[in-house]
Amino acid sequence: MLRIIFFLFLSVALHAQPNSSDKKQLKTFFDTSLLNGQAYEWLDYLTNRIGSRLSGSLGAERAVAWTKAELDALGLDRVYLQPVKVPKWVRGAKEFALIETAPGVTFNVPITALGGSVATPSVGLKAFVVEVQGIEELKALGREQIEGKIVFFNRPMQANLISTFQAYSGCVDQRYSGAKEASAYGAVGVIVRSMNLRLDDLPHTGAMSYGDQEVSKRIPAAAISTNAAEKLSKLLKLEPKLKFLFRQQCKTYPDVWSHNVIGEITGSEFPKEIIVVGGHLDSWDLGDGAHDDGAGVVQSMEVLRLFKATGYKPKRTIRVVLFMNEENGLRGGNAYADNALLTGERHIFALESDAGGFTPRGFSFNCSDEEFAQIESWKPLFKPYLIHYFEQGGSGADIRPLKNKYNVLAGLRPDSQRYFDHHHAENDTFDAVNKRELELGAATMTSLIYLYDMYGLAVPSDNTFAR
Amino acid sequence: MLRIIFFLFLSVALHAQPNSSDKKQLKTFFDTSLLNGQAYEWLDYLTNRIGSRLSGSLGAERAVAWTKAELDALGLDRVYLQPVKVPKWVRGAKEFALIETAPGVTFNVPITALGGSVATPSVGLKAFVVEVQGIEELKALGREQIEGKIVFFNRPMQANLISTFQAYSGCVDQRYSGAKEASAYGAVGVIVRSMNLRLDDLPHTGAMSYGDQEVSKRIPAAAISTNAAEKLSKLLKLEPKLKFLFRQQCKTYPDVWSHNVIGEITGSEFPKEIIVVGGHLDSWDLGDGAHDDGAGVVQSMEVLRLFKATGYKPKRTIRVVLFMNEENGLRGGNAYADNALLTGERHIFALESDAGGFTPRGFSFNCSDEEFAQIESWKPLFKPYLIHYFEQGGSGADIRPLKNKYNVLAGLRPDSQRYFDHHHAENDTFDAVNKRELELGAATMTSLIYLYDMYGLAVPSDNTFAR
Repeated sequence: MLRIIFFLFLSVALHAQPNSSDKKQLKTFFDTSLLNGQAYEWLDYLTNRIGSRLSGSLGAERAVAWTKAELDALGLDRVYLQPVKVPKWVRGAKEFALIETAPGVTFNVPITALGGSVATPSVGLKAFVVEVQGIEELKALGREQIEGKIVFFNRPMQANLISTFQAYSGCVDQRYSGAKEASAYGAVGVIVRSMNLRLDDLPHTGAMSYGDQEVSKRIPAAAISTNAAEKLSKLLKLEPKLKFLFRQQCKTYPDVWSHNVIGEITGSEFPKEIIVVGGHLDSWDLGDGAHDDGAGVVQSMEVLRLFKATGYKPKRTIRVVLFMNEENGLRGGNAYADNALLTGERHIFALESDAGGFTPRGFSFNCSDEEFAQIESWKPLFKPYLIHYFEQGGSGADIRPLKNKYNVLAGLRPDSQRYFDHHHAENDTFDAVNKRELELGAATMTSLIYLYDMYGLAVPSDNTFAR
Repeated sequence: MLRIIFFLFLSVALHAQPNSSDKKQLKTFFDTSLLNGQAYEWLDYLTNRIGSRLSGSLGAERAVAWTKAELDALGLDRVYLQPVKVPKWVRGAKEFALIETAPGVTFNVPITALGGSVATPSVGLKAFVVEVQGIEELKALGREQIEGKIVFFNRPMQANLISTFQAYSGCVDQRYSGAKEASAYGAVGVIVRSMNLRLDDLPHTGAMSYGDQEVSKRIPAAAISTNAAEKLSKLLKLEPKLKFLFRQQCKTYPDVWSHNVIGEITGSEFPKEIIVVGGHLDSWDLGDGAHDDGAGVVQSMEVLRLFKATGYKPKRTIRVVLFMNEENGLRGGNAYADNALLTGERHIFALESDAGGFTPRGFSFNCSDEEFAQIESWKPLFKPYLIHYFEQGGSGADIRPLKNKYNVLAGLRPDSQRYFDHHHAENDTFDAVNKRELELGAATMTSLIYLYDMYGLAVPSDNTFAR
């Protein structure tokens, strides 16, 4: 306890007092980002010239080459690729689905295969449908009511939760594990209501997993749009014996090599204390991955560019990492952390932007109470920029493997209301990103990275290798 | 001073402690708004079925009739129309403009007449152009460099200001007074860079005024898109002798009668203490007035509907006022306040939503320090909804005439980053409004109105008639 009080005192005395020079530095970052930013132009190229970037795809490889070239052009101290073996799942021909309420009476339905799913038979899969509100309902229904049928998971995202990410967390088990769970009761396929708070016609894809289920038992899984889910549910009440047909030709190939893209400015005083800022370079194959996570990629690149452009020379090593394969494997994040452990690199702080390019509201921190006290002392510096949200919690999927008991991880928290309108769907495109909102996010991130560079950890330790 | 301390004490002791019942009530409002809201459906009708609502237009009159009918259907205690005489300015045929860099070498330019402007000659107005960065430059240039020319006001909105409303305030004098000021130096017309932070092809209209200038001296004024302003500025550097041609057929007719639309729930304990919530029913004629101010209109209606729907019976009289003619005259706001003064109605609090239907961030309050202390004590109640912005400042144009030294006025403050992308332009349409963001705003407003209903003013006074 004395130790804690000592460190709190130390942190207040040595580190935590934001001063007028910090205030000025933050203003320089915000001014430069808003008046002469590069993030929006980068995002234009990444989404409109390269487009979607699913792991193992041509788009992903083009994104690796292009971001490396852009980082090279910034004149950083070191830019390199880190090899990562990634899964390669390919969607194949566009999916097709319909509801058949009586022979010859059909309604087409917007549908998308879930990432990792197996294909249907080439003529499609047609079966009766049983609707459930979640995995827990399967047991009550039992094999007799499920066998031979398509299970339709229709629990919607909860609209009265203020954080849409919380609403997502409350539903996504249906998408991720629904197929595996339903097949245990003899289901022949699974369709899921898209993870979307709006009622519209766009199906949203996303990762699913069969776990260690043997290949012969795997059943195809797909998502239908929210409007289609509403319609199917209503039709089922009128005609419980309706049939659903869907056809998808997706396939998993053997893993292939890809890369994390890394660039850094070497610290002038403490080069071995590494601060990471990043996002993930891969995206789903619908849309162009503009919010998820093109925004995080270009904002992270912009942090280092803003340091260069404003002449700020960091004391610690500032490293941008563009992670490969967040969406369907997290291989990039794991490989990065494994390598850091192997080489004994000391990461004191990491920040990820992977919640969209919307107006930034603050950060969530995975840290101790002592570290959080320092962070809270920085809050007044952010007030002029309406950055108010500083809470303990999660950080980001790609950086999470870096966590040890000494370091601090953080996630940018933009306004979340519109995020799931676009998430994993074909409307996750450049036009859905507002230039100023993207730039405010980049400046907000740069400001926090700057403060960690200036003041380091509140509770410094040399022993930060162990996880 | 003692009196102030006494009132501060009183307010803390009697009023200001948010309790668990307030907390529960706010959650009920948010839940109901997000799960069973009416605002979005109303906005759909107002924008897509009725459309634009410029004062004196058919759209404005249809909006009066429709909102009155909707308020009637809510079962309020009183719904009525308040007559207001409003200006009637009509755009006429679509405007036309081009840049002529040499005889026969022309570039078309998106243009819109400013509200209140006179027409050009029917063949158009063609003249040399002098570019300025603001009204203050006119004097330095003097009559010799301005006479016979079109003055091009090209000072952009300042992108590094975090509040886009502040950036707007820093430019809008060019639009509002540019024509009157330039004509004093012999200018024959005025074009203004649109009040828009984005570079795009949409011209943004808005109010201008000739003040008391005699009619024969009035010159036509129009706004060109930001892309066109950039292009014109660049071409002027290459060819200072280029000419600009524009044609507009707008016209001001004699004033006509219209109405404020008013509905109220009579207070059960203090019926003579009136609390107003409102927005303005009129809009510009480009677009459908979705953010400006369809959002404020439906959110204000939703406040009373949420009271009814949740069974909350107010102690004070809660009145929704849909003001006519905010955009080009403020006749509705003035008429409402004049009438309140005349009839001796006692308004203790008024809230306006006129800053777009984006994610709410908080409120700005026009009030004394004593009153603000009470407001600050309510902040913790709003934290679960990420409502964090509570500052002293302005309120809303329509309610401002109600201000006296006793009452409190407030304006909803949504996220402002995207607002001027749509403001007064043809893309201010329903699809630019997000359902959840609109609903969060309505619940936030309802919560504040509820708190004023519960606790009243921190410094109560019977003498609140005088302004």
